[in-house]
Formats: sequence, C-alpha cells, structure tokens
Amino acid sequence: MTGPGKTRIAILGASGYSGAELVRLLARHPKVTLSFLGAASEAGKELKELYPALRGLALPRLAKLEPADLAGQADLVFLALPHTESQKLAPALLAAGLKVVDLSGDFRLRDAAQYAAFYKTEHREPAALAEAVYGLTEIHGPAVAKARLVANPGCYTTCSILPLYPLLKAGWLKIDSVVIDAKSGVTGAGRKLTNANTFAEVDANFSAYKVAGAHQHIPEIEQELSAAAGAPMTVTFTPHLLPLNRGILATCYASPAKPASEAELQACVADFYRDKPFVRVLAGAELPTLRSVVGSNLLEVAVKYDARAKRVIVFSALDNLVKGAAGQAVQNMNLMQGWPETDGLELIAQPV
Amino acid sequence: MTGPGKTRIAILGASGYSGAELVRLLARHPKVTLSFLGAASEAGKELKELYPALRGLALPRLAKLEPADLAGQADLVFLALPHTESQKLAPALLAAGLKVVDLSGDFRLRDAAQYAAFYKTEHREPAALAEAVYGLTEIHGPAVAKARLVANPGCYTTCSILPLYPLLKAGWLKIDSVVIDAKSGVTGAGRKLTNANTFAEVDANFSAYKVAGAHQHIPEIEQELSAAAGAPMTVTFTPHLLPLNRGILATCYASPAKPASEAELQACVADFYRDKPFVRVLAGAELPTLRSVVGSNLLEVAVKYDARAKRVIVFSALDNLVKGAAGQAVQNMNLMQGWPETDGLELIAQPV
Amino acid sequence: MTGPGKTRIAILGASGYSGAELVRLLARHPKVTLSFLGAASEAGKELKELYPALRGLALPRLAKLEPADLAGQADLVFLALPHTESQKLAPALLAAGLKVVDLSGDFRLRDAAQYAAFYKTEHREPAALAEAVYGLTEIHGPAVAKARLVANPGCYTTCSILPLYPLLKAGWLKIDSVVIDAKSGVTGAGRKLTNANTFAEVDANFSAYKVAGAHQHIPEIEQELSAAAGAPMTVTFTPHLLPLNRGILATCYASPAKPASEAELQACVADFYRDKPFVRVLAGAELPTLRSVVGSNLLEVAVKYDARAKRVIVFSALDNLVKGAAGQAVQNMNLMQGWPETDGLELIAQPV
Amino acid sequence: MTGPGKTRIAILGASGYSGAELVRLLARHPKVTLSFLGAASEAGKELKELYPALRGLALPRLAKLEPADLAGQADLVFLALPHTESQKLAPALLAAGLKVVDLSGDFRLRDAAQYAAFYKTEHREPAALAEAVYGLTEIHGPAVAKARLVANPGCYTTCSILPLYPLLKAGWLKIDSVVIDAKSGVTGAGRKLTNANTFAEVDANFSAYKVAGAHQHIPEIEQELSAAAGAPMTVTFTPHLLPLNRGILATCYASPAKPASEAELQACVADFYRDKPFVRVLAGAELPTLRSVVGSNLLEVAVKYDARAKRVIVFSALDNLVKGAAGQAVQNMNLMQGWPETDGLELIAQPV
Repeated sequence: MTGPGKTRIAILGASGYSGAELVRLLARHPKVTLSFLGAASEAGKELKELYPALRGLALPRLAKLEPADLAGQADLVFLALPHTESQKLAPALLAAGLKVVDLSGDFRLRDAAQYAAFYKTEHREPAALAEAVYGLTEIHGPAVAKARLVANPGCYTTCSILPLYPLLKAGWLKIDSVVIDAKSGVTGAGRKLTNANTFAEVDANFSAYKVAGAHQHIPEIEQELSAAAGAPMTVTFTPHLLPLNRGILATCYASPAKPASEAELQACVADFYRDKPFVRVLAGAELPTLRSVVGSNLLEVAVKYDARAKRVIVFSALDNLVKGAAGQAVQNMNLMQGWPETDGLELIAQPV
Repeated sequence: MTGPGKTRIAILGASGYSGAELVRLLARHPKVTLSFLGAASEAGKELKELYPALRGLALPRLAKLEPADLAGQADLVFLALPHTESQKLAPALLAAGLKVVDLSGDFRLRDAAQYAAFYKTEHREPAALAEAVYGLTEIHGPAVAKARLVANPGCYTTCSILPLYPLLKAGWLKIDSVVIDAKSGVTGAGRKLTNANTFAEVDANFSAYKVAGAHQHIPEIEQELSAAAGAPMTVTFTPHLLPLNRGILATCYASPAKPASEAELQACVADFYRDKPFVRVLAGAELPTLRSVVGSNLLEVAVKYDARAKRVIVFSALDNLVKGAAGQAVQNMNLMQGWPETDGLELIAQPV
Repeated sequence: MTGPGKTRIAILGASGYSGAELVRLLARHPKVTLSFLGAASEAGKELKELYPALRGLALPRLAKLEPADLAGQADLVFLALPHTESQKLAPALLAAGLKVVDLSGDFRLRDAAQYAAFYKTEHREPAALAEAVYGLTEIHGPAVAKARLVANPGCYTTCSILPLYPLLKAGWLKIDSVVIDAKSGVTGAGRKLTNANTFAEVDANFSAYKVAGAHQHIPEIEQELSAAAGAPMTVTFTPHLLPLNRGILATCYASPAKPASEAELQACVADFYRDKPFVRVLAGAELPTLRSVVGSNLLEVAVKYDARAKRVIVFSALDNLVKGAAGQAVQNMNLMQGWPETDGLELIAQPV
Repeated sequence: MTGPGKTRIAILGASGYSGAELVRLLARHPKVTLSFLGAASEAGKELKELYPALRGLALPRLAKLEPADLAGQADLVFLALPHTESQKLAPALLAAGLKVVDLSGDFRLRDAAQYAAFYKTEHREPAALAEAVYGLTEIHGPAVAKARLVANPGCYTTCSILPLYPLLKAGWLKIDSVVIDAKSGVTGAGRKLTNANTFAEVDANFSAYKVAGAHQHIPEIEQELSAAAGAPMTVTFTPHLLPLNRGILATCYASPAKPASEAELQACVADFYRDKPFVRVLAGAELPTLRSVVGSNLLEVAVKYDARAKRVIVFSALDNLVKGAAGQAVQNMNLMQGWPETDGLELIAQPV
C-alpha cells in the first residue's frame, strides 16, 4: 500500500461509514497510500476498534482533524464530514495546494439559496462553491478531470439522476410528471446514533421518511435533471428505509412526452452509457437488484414502459457506500489524477 | 376452543401461510371450533410439524381435501387454495349448505375476461362468480353480511384500494394519474418452494418484479377504484420484494383534480373510516410503518400533499397475512355470522 | 381495560423494551388497568411516539417517576428500570402498601457480595433484599404467591436454569461439567443507544461478548442451580448476539454423573414440568426454535444424549421480552394476586 | 481474465453457492482463466441468470457435466458437487492428467468405514481415496503442494479444527472434554430447495439441527484432532442455523489438561499460525465476529480461559463460502500450482 511514488491520501471523517469504505477501497488501490485518517470524537483509536473488518490493514491511527498540517502529509483529501464542516475546511486545503473530494452536501448545489432552504443554514464559502465541480462522474467527467474541488454527489441523487438524465435530455418525459420512489439501506444515514437506526427499530420494519418534498437531496436532483431537460423542473421524491445495510433502489415514474416504445426508451439510456464502465443498462426481462450491485461501484438501470397506463418506469440500483459515496469519490479521484477510471474499483458483488 | 354451540370451521389449504394464520386466529376466536384442516401434499401430518409455533394447539390432523364430506363436519369453510382450485370446490360446498370464504383470486373479478387475461386461464364457474361478494369489508360490509360466498381480497389490493377509495370517490384525484409503488414481505408469495423465496436470495436484497402492468392484482384494484371514481381507470402498479416476512407498505401517488390542501385530503380519508375499527388514519407527522401493523388486523393510512410538485401521496400499511388475508377473512366471517366484527381480531402488534 | 374493580398497575420504566412489552401484555389482561406509566428521559411523551405499534391503545402519558405519588394511583408496581434504580425505589413502594415486581438485577442475588462482584456496586437495601422472592415462577411459585416484592429473573437465567434444574436436582449431571452456550436477540440489551446495537453492526453479524465468566447473569444461574444440585457449583456461560430482535436459545452441555439414557433424562425434565402451562418439554426429534416461542410466554426444552461422546445436551428457548421479562413478570403478578397463572398470557406465536 | 499462459480451470457444479463463489474469486485471479462451467440441472443457462451479481463477467455458458471432454479444455478441475458425485468423476479426471480439488465430502475421511457410517453409503473409489490429500492448507500445506487430488475440507470442520489443533498438539486440553458449539449461515446448506432454507423459516429464527453426534462433519473433525492429540478422540459437535447468509462462528470448550493461563494458551495458538496469511489470532479483548471475516479468506481465532470454571474457550470465525469452501480451494490450487498462496485471495471484508 505504501511506497515511493504513491499519492498520499488523507481522509477527514474516517470513522464514519463512508470514511471506512474509502479505507477499504483505497487500501487496495494501486497508486495511493493512506497517510492520514482524521476523526473528531474517535481520535486516538485504531480504526479497527470501530470496524473489526479492517483488522488486517496497517493504517495510521485516527487523529484529530488538523487540516493545517495536511499540506506536508497528503496530496489529496477526502472530506467525509457532516455538511457545514466541509466548507470550513475546504478553502484552506485548496490554498495549501491539496486537491479535495468532498462527500458532504456542502458544494453540490450551484444555488446557495437552495442550500439554505434545504440544509437550514447559510452557505459561508461562495468562492469555493463557485469553483466546485459536481462529481457525478458519468455526466461531468471532463470537468472533474480538471477540478481541484469536487462535490461528490449524494447516494440518493446518483441513483435518481443517472437513470432519468438521458431520457429527459432526449425529450422523452413530461417534465412535470416525475416521481422517484426510493428505498435505501440504513448505512445511508451514517454512523450517528439515533433510535431510528437501532436494530430493534429497523429489522422486520419498513417505512417512508422526510416525505412530500422534505429531503435535502431534492434540490440536487432537480438541479441536474433541469439541466438535462433544459427547463426548470420539480420532482416528487420519497425516501424509504429498508431493513438491510447497503443499497438503494429507485423506482422512477414519468409520463411520456410523446408516443414511446420500451425499445426506444431502453436504447436511449443504453446508448448514453455505452462506454461507461460503472453503469450497467439491463435489457430483456432483467431488473436491477441490490444483490447485483452491493460491494461494487456499479449502477444498474432498467427501462420499462407500462403500455396499459401509458407510463415510463425506470429502475436503478447502487451500493450507497460505493457508487453512492466512497466508490464514486475514488472514481473522481482517478479522473482528477489522470488515472484509469476503474483503478481500485474492479469489485465483484457477492453472488449470495 | 371446542364446545357446544360453537360454529364448526373447515380450512382447505391449511398447510399454506394463510391457512396457518387462519389457525392462529381461529384458535383464539370465542365462537368457533376448528373441525377440519385440509391439505393436499401434507395430508397425514400434524400442522405443528410444518409450523412449530402451533405446537401448543390441539388441532385435527391434516387430511386430504374431501369437500364432499364437509357437509356434516363444518358450517363454514375457508378456502386457502391456489386459484383455479377454489372454483372447483366452491359450488359443491355452497350446494351442501356451507358458507364459503375464498382467499384465492377466483371470485374477485366481476369480469371473467379480466380473470382470463391476468390469470391465463378461463373461469369455469360463472354462476358462483355472479353470486360472490367482494369481501373488502370496509367497503362492502353490508353485502358481505348477507353473502354465502365471499371473495376475500388480495393483500396488495386491500393495501392499495382502501387508502385511495375515499379520495377517488370524493373526486380529489385525476383518475389517469395514479401510481402505486408497493413493497411486500416474502410470505405474500406463499409457501411454494422457489429459488426466489430462499433466504439466500431474499436477505439483504431488494428488487421489483412483475412490473409494467403484469401483476394479477391490477384488475382487482382497478375494478374497485373505478367504482369509487365512477369511471373506468387504469393504474400503474409496481410490486417489490422486501427482506422481511410480513407486511406491505404502499406508497400511492396521484395528481390533484382540483386545488387541494393536505388537511382537506386527510379529513376526507379520516371521515370515511371514522367508525371502522381496523383502519387507523394517521394525522400530523405520523406515517405508517410495518412494525405498527404486523401481527394485527389493522390498516394504517397517512395522507400527504407535496405542494412543491403538486402531488398527493398516500401511504398505507398492513400485515399481508392478517388484514391482507386471514384476518380480513375472519372479519368477513364475523359479518356473515352476525357476530361483532372484531371477534378474535383484537390483536396488538409487538412494540419491538 | 379500565373499569371498576380492576387492579391498578404502574410501570416505572415504561419507555424501555420490557416496559413497552408489559404494556402490550397488560392492555389485554382481564383484571388490570394501567394507571401510571413512568419514564425519566421520555416524560411528557405518549408511549406511541416511541412505539408506533402501541398507537391504538388509550394509555396515560409518560410521566416522571414519582414513586411518592403512586400510593393513591396504583396497587402493584412493575419496576422496569436499570439496576441500582430499583433498589432506591422499592422500599418506599413497599412501605406505601404496594406490591412490587422488579425486573432489574437488584433483588435477584441472595448474596450481596455476589451482587457487588458482578454489578460493580454495593447493594444498599439489605432488608428489601432479604424479603425479596426470586420469581422464577415454575420453581418458586408458592413463595411468589405470598410475596410483596418479587425479583423477576433475567432472560438468560430463565432460559438457562429451567432446563438444567430438574436434571441437577435428580443427580443426573456432574456439577463441575456444565457449559451454557447462549444466543440472544438484541432486545435483551435494552433500548439504550450504543454502537453495538445499531442495525449496521448487528445485521448479518454474530459474535460472543462478556465471555469467560464476565456476564452478570452468572451468579443468578449458579445460585439456583447450586440449590438444585445441593452443592455449590460454577458454570461456564457464554452469551452471543443474534441478528434478530427477540428470543434466546441456550445449548447446555454436561457430563452424566451416572449411566444415562436419553429417555430417562427426557422423562426427568418432562415429569418435573408436567403441570406447568408455560414449559413445553419436547419429545422425539423436535427441537426448540425461536419461532415457536417468540411472542408467547413459553419456554421450550429438549433433552438429548450424545452417546458417542457421553454428554448430555439440553436445548431451551424463550422470548426474552416475554418469558424472559414482561411475561414472567405478569405470571408472577397473577400468582401474587391469586389469579389464574395464565391470565393475559394466552399468546400464540406467529407460524411465520 | 483469459490470455496466453493462463491455467485453464473447469468448475463442475458451478450453479451451486460454492461454484458461484469460485467464479467470483477466479474471475479476478491473475493466473487462471475459466474455461468450463459445468452444471447438471441448469445446463444451457448463463450463470448470471442464477446470480445477477455475476452479470458483469464474461463467462462460458453452463454446460452439462462432461468430464470426458475436459482433458482438452482444462488443466485443473474444481468439483463442487454433492458427495457420491465427486468420487464418480475424480478417477477419470486424474487419469486424463488433470489436477482435481474436490469440495465434497467424498475424499476427506481416511477411513472408508467412517464415510459409510456418516454418509450412509459405501465409498466406491478406495484408490483415489488413498491418494487424496486433506486440504486443510495451514496443516497439510506441504502435502497439498505435491498432490494431484485434494479433498477440500468442510466449512464447519475448517472452523472447528484450526482453533483447537495447536492446543491439542501441545497437550493443553483433556481430549475427552471437547465441545464445539457451531453456528452457521444458511448458505452452508447449499442451494438445494427445502422448506428449511426459505426466508420465511430462517428469518428471525434460530435453532440447532443434526444434534447429538449426527452431523457428517464430525468424523472429519475427529480425524484431524485425533492426529493433533496423538490419540483417538471424540467430540460433541452441535450445529445451529443463523438467520444470515455467510459465516460460521464456533465456540469451542475444553477442560485444561494441566494448569493453564490465558496468556500461555493464546501464545500457543498465535505461535502456531504466525506465518499463515489467512489465520488471524486475536489478542487482548478482541473476539472473532462474522463481519470481520465475511467476504474474505480469513479465519479469526481468540483464546480465552474461564478461571472461575476452569475451562478453555476458543472462538473461531470464517466465511463458509470462502475459507470454508471456495477460498480454501483456491488457496489449495495456488499451492498445487506453485503460486503464491494469497493469489486471488487478497480480499477485505466490508466494514459495515
């Protein structure tokens, strides 16, 4: 893992689920070495005390977040911190010459007013916000390659935007008709202790939350889909909590804007992602499953047309900690560094 | 459980999940005795060999289905059989003077052509079909009370129809805009062995199935919702498989037919079910959860309005084996016999 | 639930899992009314805010623990509090004329030195401790019937003592050979938030904890088994955490003290519990399963003899929140009040 | 994956769980190419139809088992077949010059009488049995390196033998005192459909099976442990079924043969496995968990001493499909081919 010529990586917020998943991925990445693992409340511990699965890795001990010192210790920093924390640190890191991939919501929304509306706090770093590139790799890859600061997309948003983007761009969907019914595993909510995340609450249970326009990923979805559609659009987005650890499945509904066949719709999406190694557009009777993506950096998509009710249905699935967080962050790092996009991400999901 | 004056109950198909759940409920019902448990492939066994949870009950041994003999052995019969099997037996049972509650799909659809289209086989008992009453108790209770043959609704259909019925009847929803995104536990698929129902496939997994207009519960939903709306309507219905045993949650979307407020919509549904003991219409921030209905005969409903996207969202939840099958069947029996609707159904879900 | 002539029940610690389960059971008990629900941190809330499954019950709002006021408000009190809290309250409650069933570990150990050793704190109420009756109902029922203060046994201990007690009493087992390998669902650890109880940690995982003589239930097990054996004995007890909510299965191993046959051993246990409504001694090839006890107040036991290795193996299973806590507490209340032992406890486990 | 100079691999029984896991591992192995995937009942299908997680791999279509043709198509064969099937095929494969790693129980027991006793059928290939090397890699690695036919150990057996072997060899344990209480995920039982493996049966459930000396892995455990102890020994082995997919945790109990300290016992095991890359002997308060091994080829071990009860307790954990089956098979292949033992097996478990 370590060695001469390797790019030195710091992770701030290494004790959270996305941070630990970054460690899992980067520990096997051929071109990097993990030089600094920052954690606030857990500083002083070994990461393996929190995650026994990482017992076998030789890792730096968790340390207090000391961005001032990172200049000499790292070349690129992943910020796996709560929103508002990232914007406090990013400008200084950039000024010190480090590249930054931020996994929080702090730099995703072009419109600071939307940030204030959904995150209930003012954005304090407009300059960094203006510089940040939205790191939905399959859409903004060329800009990512040139960026110093990448805003890594949310898990729900990656799963929602990618399947709908080509269809909206090609004009297949009525823009006021989009409904996204999304179901996520519990790790999407992070490691913070709440009654909502206990085993006793989650197991054998299922329900919706933050319904009717309340979820903070909505403006991010609308920002990108509006760009695809070429017109401002709103979506109905309903998140649900699944009794499992990893994975999001989104079932997206829309009315066709013009007469459509399933074959045309399917071809539209398949063509759009033809050369993208991490988007698998299914054909025939295949549908996305969580099993087929969990553990990997893949997004699966299937396009269906309900001819009885005249409605387009698009299914998509990803691992919220990989393509929905740490994996896409590594994918973005690869582009920022000029490396092959798939480095460190050649993961196969477990068959059972 | 047994005793003079008790109504004698036969269950045909007692070895399946709905059959076993009927046994659980009827074993504690104050007015009945279980006189006959029919099963085809498992005849000769004790039911407890299949379901250790029933070890403590004194039950008749599973016997071959012998409807001819039931006349002297039972007063009312529950048919918990695969579709096509029920229609073969029901006419003779009626002729022998027994009342029948059928849990299959055989007598639910008024239009035999719809049956043929979705069940891929012709209906062979038009007379019995014409007599059958659709046992969605909260809607058709008075007819159920006079019926000899009740078609107990499907699990998905109960969960889908009840939340939307009042809103469509009151004209709140555009009838071409209804999308039902439904998520079910695995027991909804019955006890038949398939790779799709193994633990290895289901656990930590989630996906849709029978998508884009393929599920056989669709015509049943449309039959009832069209009656509510006063006009023929089609819906988009997408079933998904949850990694848990019991429970369905339906998230239903529709566009408002006229300017609406969440309070008005909520009041419409709450008023409609005000005196119904098994429908709990939630208010405020409460949302249905599977935990709060599983094990009980309750349906929970919550009505929300997404003002940003101008869309009505209705959530509903039930236990597919209770309100979605055996519980509603007992509820129908209670009405057919002139007993209190809640007899044997005063069940409380487990808090954790 | 309420009504003239009903015994008034207070629960202190109603917001925990055992407290909520007491509510579930007592809400359907024919002879009691719930008059007071005490909770410290959650005072002011409705219990249904914490447990949506209890939404349908009319319950008093959670209130601060005010034992001084309970004299006029309750006839019998369940203490579902952390250890050390119960001993602070019990003497005053007894002095005010209330009966007390304590679900904590505070009054279970006859020897205060053992309490100090395993709970890491001195016992401060020796008089109450001397009065308390250990409420393992099947063993100490007659004493329970006369008690004012009952120490309700631990979940692991009920599951461990009951299967071994008859065999030790009858001299079948070498007393230095007993190993208890126990596996519990997560609700056994209570509702307190810890990383160890999150869904992310528990799901798809399994491990032991508090191993090699560290668990606080050990002295309780040894106290009762020593009494059965007529000599002091130590056991090896290893708890493990199962990825499920409810249920304990204990696999107990011992060497035979004399030549034994499986039939003799099985008969010893079956005879001992012949008239006990909540102990189901299995015969033939049947083995305890969690499914067959969860939700009910039953303990299942099976006795096997490994003739190859000359070792007695006893399996037992219960629902840690029912027979392991709230159910046995109600069973004890029934005896203390002179009511039928099974009142409010005629529960059937769900077949699936 | 394919390419000149790669060793051609055939898997017979590729449609089972071990077969699919072999595909997952070998698809990323640097020195092999998958040239033939045999399956009986599923021949003609693509493997991804059974395992959507493998959708992204270019694989040969499942074909009928045609060992006669394998000579020209493969250099090494993995037999992932039911017992009795493997012994039918192995001699011909060896005769055709292929190396064979058999994952069934057919070649594990040196004593054919034991095979007959536990597998209820006579062994029919004594010559191949005599040649076979028992592939518990950490114990028999040098013999494996020279073998043509390797009998890959069972999942329970690997988890049971490895932790106890060093302690028995060093004389720390009374040989008549060993109890192994083992808990396994459902994939250990294979992909064959039975009611015992449905989600409805397994979820939220737990129980023992094949108790009191009945499990076919017992003679395999005793064969190896007797060799370690230098004297014939019997063990009590109790398997239990966990509600999860992957992983076995064994809790092993024994009486010390001489005064022991935890430090001495721990050092004995740690020293024995010091240079073994896939055995992680824990120290301090760490205990094995399934989470920390699942997905990887690791076995975790912890050694404890219960000083109160004078009993040695050894915990071990592995992924039954990796170190317990496919992973150890690949490890054996690596030795047989003279490759680094860790090739293709550098897997990290997921932190959550």
